[in-house]
Amino acid sequence: MNDLAIHLTDGNGKHLYEQIYEYIADEIREGKLLAGEKLPSTRSLAEYLQVARSTVELAYGQLQSEGYIESIPYKGYFICRVEELYRLGPAENRGNGNVGHGSRDPGNESHGSGDPGNSRQGNGGPAGQADGWRNGRREGRFAIDFSPNAIDMDLFPFGIWRRITREILSGDRKELFALGEPRGDLELRKTVCRYLHASRGVNASPEQIIVGAGNDYLLLLLQYILGRQITAAFENPSYRRAFRIFSSFAAKTVTVPSDEGGIRVDGLLASGADVAYVMPSRQFPTGTVMPIGRRTELLRWAAGSPGRYLVEDDYDSEFRYRGKPVPSLQSADAAGRVIYIGTFSKSVAPAIRISFMVLPERLLEAYEKNCGFFSSTVSRIDQTVLNEFILSGAFERHLNRMRKAYREKHDLLLDCLQPLLGRYRLSGEYAGLHVLLTSREPAREEELLGRAADCGVRIYGLKEAALAPLQTECATVLLGYGGLDAEKIKEGTRRLDRVL
Amino acid sequence: MNDLAIHLTDGNGKHLYEQIYEYIADEIREGKLLAGEKLPSTRSLAEYLQVARSTVELAYGQLQSEGYIESIPYKGYFICRVEELYRLGPAENRGNGNVGHGSRDPGNESHGSGDPGNSRQGNGGPAGQADGWRNGRREGRFAIDFSPNAIDMDLFPFGIWRRITREILSGDRKELFALGEPRGDLELRKTVCRYLHASRGVNASPEQIIVGAGNDYLLLLLQYILGRQITAAFENPSYRRAFRIFSSFAAKTVTVPSDEGGIRVDGLLASGADVAYVMPSRQFPTGTVMPIGRRTELLRWAAGSPGRYLVEDDYDSEFRYRGKPVPSLQSADAAGRVIYIGTFSKSVAPAIRISFMVLPERLLEAYEKNCGFFSSTVSRIDQTVLNEFILSGAFERHLNRMRKAYREKHDLLLDCLQPLLGRYRLSGEYAGLHVLLTSREPAREEELLGRAADCGVRIYGLKEAALAPLQTECATVLLGYGGLDAEKIKEGTRRLDRVL
Repeated sequence: MNDLAIHLTDGNGKHLYEQIYEYIADEIREGKLLAGEKLPSTRSLAEYLQVARSTVELAYGQLQSEGYIESIPYKGYFICRVEELYRLGPAENRGNGNVGHGSRDPGNESHGSGDPGNSRQGNGGPAGQADGWRNGRREGRFAIDFSPNAIDMDLFPFGIWRRITREILSGDRKELFALGEPRGDLELRKTVCRYLHASRGVNASPEQIIVGAGNDYLLLLLQYILGRQITAAFENPSYRRAFRIFSSFAAKTVTVPSDEGGIRVDGLLASGADVAYVMPSRQFPTGTVMPIGRRTELLRWAAGSPGRYLVEDDYDSEFRYRGKPVPSLQSADAAGRVIYIGTFSKSVAPAIRISFMVLPERLLEAYEKNCGFFSSTVSRIDQTVLNEFILSGAFERHLNRMRKAYREKHDLLLDCLQPLLGRYRLSGEYAGLHVLLTSREPAREEELLGRAADCGVRIYGLKEAALAPLQTECATVLLGYGGLDAEKIKEGTRRLDRVL
Repeated sequence: MNDLAIHLTDGNGKHLYEQIYEYIADEIREGKLLAGEKLPSTRSLAEYLQVARSTVELAYGQLQSEGYIESIPYKGYFICRVEELYRLGPAENRGNGNVGHGSRDPGNESHGSGDPGNSRQGNGGPAGQADGWRNGRREGRFAIDFSPNAIDMDLFPFGIWRRITREILSGDRKELFALGEPRGDLELRKTVCRYLHASRGVNASPEQIIVGAGNDYLLLLLQYILGRQITAAFENPSYRRAFRIFSSFAAKTVTVPSDEGGIRVDGLLASGADVAYVMPSRQFPTGTVMPIGRRTELLRWAAGSPGRYLVEDDYDSEFRYRGKPVPSLQSADAAGRVIYIGTFSKSVAPAIRISFMVLPERLLEAYEKNCGFFSSTVSRIDQTVLNEFILSGAFERHLNRMRKAYREKHDLLLDCLQPLLGRYRLSGEYAGLHVLLTSREPAREEELLGRAADCGVRIYGLKEAALAPLQTECATVLLGYGGLDAEKIKEGTRRLDRVL
């Protein structure tokens, strides 16, 4: 117990669980706690620190979800193997302070978003797109649609958006109607930088940010930045749209085996890939959070050869209903090999076509030379409205509201799914906008979708995100809840319980 | 004189000069007036028809600018050779009536834009872009900048744009914040169809329209629609940005010789090109209006082999200060070989990132298969505002206002340039937002730009749009006037007269 010389303070604005989390994570990263070591039980640490047991549980849960520790049933919590490359010293301060999540820097330079756990960047990537799921055979004939893409448009802050838009159009700001910079307006890029830094630990200067009209467009630009002579690796299943876009220009696309930690690095090596497309914060569609050990392996893989890059699609990080957000892979990328992509399309609204890409500095020259002359694809008015929306704090309040609403739907869905859990294993919960049910017995996905459809309920099959045949005897289905109200969640799960 | 059995009427809403123009154009197309035949003089036709001589002059001017007739000094007007492919019968009615410009159909189905001569589609293509001209060595040190890219932002209808935006955001229209169709909102595509048909004679159904965030983006999509195994041909000089984009994906890009009619078809044939990028309404930067004979040759070239296409960038057609607009090449394309591109970025404002592409039906399958899944790059709010802007008639009034303002600047510039015309030949006038001055004696372009710069005036060299060395001993400079007020035009030309 003496190993954990945690000093908790009340006044530094951090939750107690965060302080515990950070202390232990630092000890692990610094090699003071070694792989295989057992942690004190939550009860004994809580007594020792004189805090509620739930506080320690929250800290352990966070450490576990990020892969620092693992829980072995009836035995306790153990330190995982974490390779030493991860956070190989902080990267240089690039314009806005380098306060990686988990470091002890209190982050004074971050903008006024308060608890970083409550301010996530946008999304609209995988789950925000319309085409990913085309189980359309009975389209329009479903009483209840558990679409993993649906979001709750009632939450959109029309009033605020309208007010900001009106104010901006009212000012005598003719420059807004001129063509802006190809990378996006500097003011917006600065704001995105600060925001990403505070919320996702992303280290970047505004020069590294490219604002574009949606993720698809930004992915298209990669052909000019990375070239077309690349082999791009994907997990299976993955975000099919991204796979199709890479397939449209890359010399080769491959799928690489994954396990419970995400994409396997041995598979990456064997594939000969140069570029790996990953979603470490929450893989789509599996919901896997990549543990820190795998992240480290991935970063080491990328640093191992000059042309290697990781494309981190951080599409889903703002909806997390337990503990702190998982920091971005980019935040730990000392070698400059992560291309970070995020979007406001889902966190604000899908129709707001504003995504952004954070390029490592080493790729800026290729960007500038090969596609830096492309005109911006986002209206300056929209950029200005979004910038004001973020700076005014409205974005943060909006996210909190969305998070609360989705958490309620999520919790209700979990309650309602209880009767099915004898037959199905639940996964992907506590984050995002969908959960997964996997049959405990061999089953056919189509059969499950068909039975649900016959009682007017649309659910979605994992195979629809498959890039290659999935090697499993059991069937997995996705249930999204973003677009459903409480009544529909209740009724939909009642029906599913009858037929699945 | 009896050959011209023109029946002028007062009541059908068409100007007298239009009726004369249309009658003669039809006669030529139908082979009733043959190449080489001499037309009556303007004076005698005016007497015969009992109209003002200026009316006939206007009609002849239009016929001349479109290449139907030519004027031989001291001899008169003669019919040009027009190949028979042009308007090989109207294309089928595709959704909105096939009322090609120049046909006798009164165009009842067109939307309420009144005089088609006063409603042009947008622009923002070549001249609307920021990078084309980088004569930046004395950037910021010019008292007067004759930029061909500048437009008059004072003309932007802030009030109307604000009102429409407010109305749209006020309605309970949540669907606006959902992700729209990849091709663009159907309502906007319908409006664009009707508008293009009425103003440019473009024949298309809404299915053929792809709305995108700027011309650059749409040109990028062509790699998925035409493939990358193409040879793309450009005039020299041409719109350099388009050349760079094609170069970024096409197997080969070539420049092809041009003459006073535009790109030469013998050169195209010799180059082995599959795709030719042209601006028939007004070539950038030369200002050449492609005559009808050359258009016909081009269309025949394209129809001559399965993989051939013409990309018509109709960037500049709304600013024409004399006579009727020149109809689009697409309007005469019976074989389905023209990809028409236009934009609202300049006609509304450069920051409004809305362009569109009209694909021939034969390319829709490739679009759908290869890039039809890319999410729309334009916000639905922006699409809806623009749609309402057009439907309400505000766009048309805005265009008229812009056209009037630019015409005044144009006329003033021409007056002010009179003192220089002994030393320089003027071209590219009566349309667009710039004119060209070509030295009558051998001269070096850099020398002229330098002398202008030394007296605080920025002018632009033709070489900056060169894709390959220009074969000329004389120097050509561009003078844009869109962004200058009367005082600056006067003062700038006074200074130029002193040093050039």
